[in-house]
Amino acid sequence: MPVSRLYKLYLSPHRKYVRTLKNLLGFVPGNLSLYRLAFRHKSVAKSVKQGVKNSNERLEFLGDAVLGSVVAEVLFKMYPYKDEGFLTELRSKMVNRNNLNQLGRKLGFEQLVEYDNRMINATRQGSLMGDAFEALVGAVYLDKGYDFTKNFLINHIIKSHIDIHTLEQTETNFKSKLIEWCQRHGKDVLFEVAQNQDGESNKLFTVQVNIDGEVVGQGKEFSKKNAEKLAAEKACEALGI
Amino acid sequence: MPVSRLYKLYLSPHRKYVRTLKNLLGFVPGNLSLYRLAFRHKSVAKSVKQGVKNSNERLEFLGDAVLGSVVAEVLFKMYPYKDEGFLTELRSKMVNRNNLNQLGRKLGFEQLVEYDNRMINATRQGSLMGDAFEALVGAVYLDKGYDFTKNFLINHIIKSHIDIHTLEQTETNFKSKLIEWCQRHGKDVLFEVAQNQDGESNKLFTVQVNIDGEVVGQGKEFSKKNAEKLAAEKACEALGI
Repeated sequence: MPVSRLYKLYLSPHRKYVRTLKNLLGFVPGNLSLYRLAFRHKSVAKSVKQGVKNSNERLEFLGDAVLGSVVAEVLFKMYPYKDEGFLTELRSKMVNRNNLNQLGRKLGFEQLVEYDNRMINATRQGSLMGDAFEALVGAVYLDKGYDFTKNFLINHIIKSHIDIHTLEQTETNFKSKLIEWCQRHGKDVLFEVAQNQDGESNKLFTVQVNIDGEVVGQGKEFSKKNAEKLAAEKACEALGI
Repeated sequence: MPVSRLYKLYLSPHRKYVRTLKNLLGFVPGNLSLYRLAFRHKSVAKSVKQGVKNSNERLEFLGDAVLGSVVAEVLFKMYPYKDEGFLTELRSKMVNRNNLNQLGRKLGFEQLVEYDNRMINATRQGSLMGDAFEALVGAVYLDKGYDFTKNFLINHIIKSHIDIHTLEQTETNFKSKLIEWCQRHGKDVLFEVAQNQDGESNKLFTVQVNIDGEVVGQGKEFSKKNAEKLAAEKACEALGI
């Protein structure tokens, strides 16, 4: 074991934190301040300059991108005969907020994330874990580089905690699929609620999906949400997404 | 110069293609078939298996992710005192379809992209260039790895062809900003067109932005598009995005 690792783990004033991180990550971190930053929510961050706080939000932006890229490659290689629509959708399922929050909790982030609980309600607390997970990916990337981060994510996170085959089977979210497709192709998408039928107790909602000024799908249901879902599904069908 | 490069550039049966790519990329490509694939639009692709065609779409998925990650790091380091909202927005401006199409054209992709022009109209032809650019990034990544791709993008593409400071000044698209924020935070966003005032020649449209069932912004304008824009801006303001 190199001297610097020995020092970090057993002698440095930060040895307790280093060991906690080593248990979590499976490796001895280099630049500790990056990891501390990754676990610092803006509710406890201080302004550093020009109104920017030393919170994990910037690392989250970076980590989100690195994670997206690693997962893209994993799926690209895992499914050589699936098209890009399938890959995009499966990636969304893997890295959605909900999954990342669960992942953060499983990894024990509740002990690590610093936040002011007077400012965050119980619902929001959950989402801090996913944000911190992305920020951690950003920290690992800056500390150790892309290939290291990729191996860490594949061997330590994806293989142990994400069941890709089960996710593949879960129901498709046509709305995200459609929005993603439109963003990718530079198209404007609009979900329009047509006036629901007046004077009835069971209101029927009509939602139309309008893409670049053209209606491409429509759904009628007794809830706005379901009408929207159906309209998105029809639009995906019509566009062959 | 190593023998393999000499062979590729001067002796191999593909030497003409290798030289074209070297002029474009600034390096001698390794696996030529990846680059050929990157420039093959689905209109000229053949089915390979289970309905998947050997077109550039899968590489585009991968390249989009790698590009997003590289640009994220560039901006992260270039703007140490800007928050993640600023970084996200500036990245969208850099890698939007329009910019990538222009970039592809500047790089001379029109000579390289294979497509069936009976199946693609003039408008669509432009967007093939941006798709091919993303696919090319995917090909470089698979051929040469992340660090090489990052250096290629920074030194050969971003520094020469993208004026980040000018993009920084261009007008903000509040709608994309809002949609991105909602996707990031797992919220449902809906742009609702309330009934426009009947019987008038100058119709006034009211658009409401509904996030997770709550109206957070509203805009009234004489065009649906402008009403939507205004509503998105109000919503961004209200949410502090």
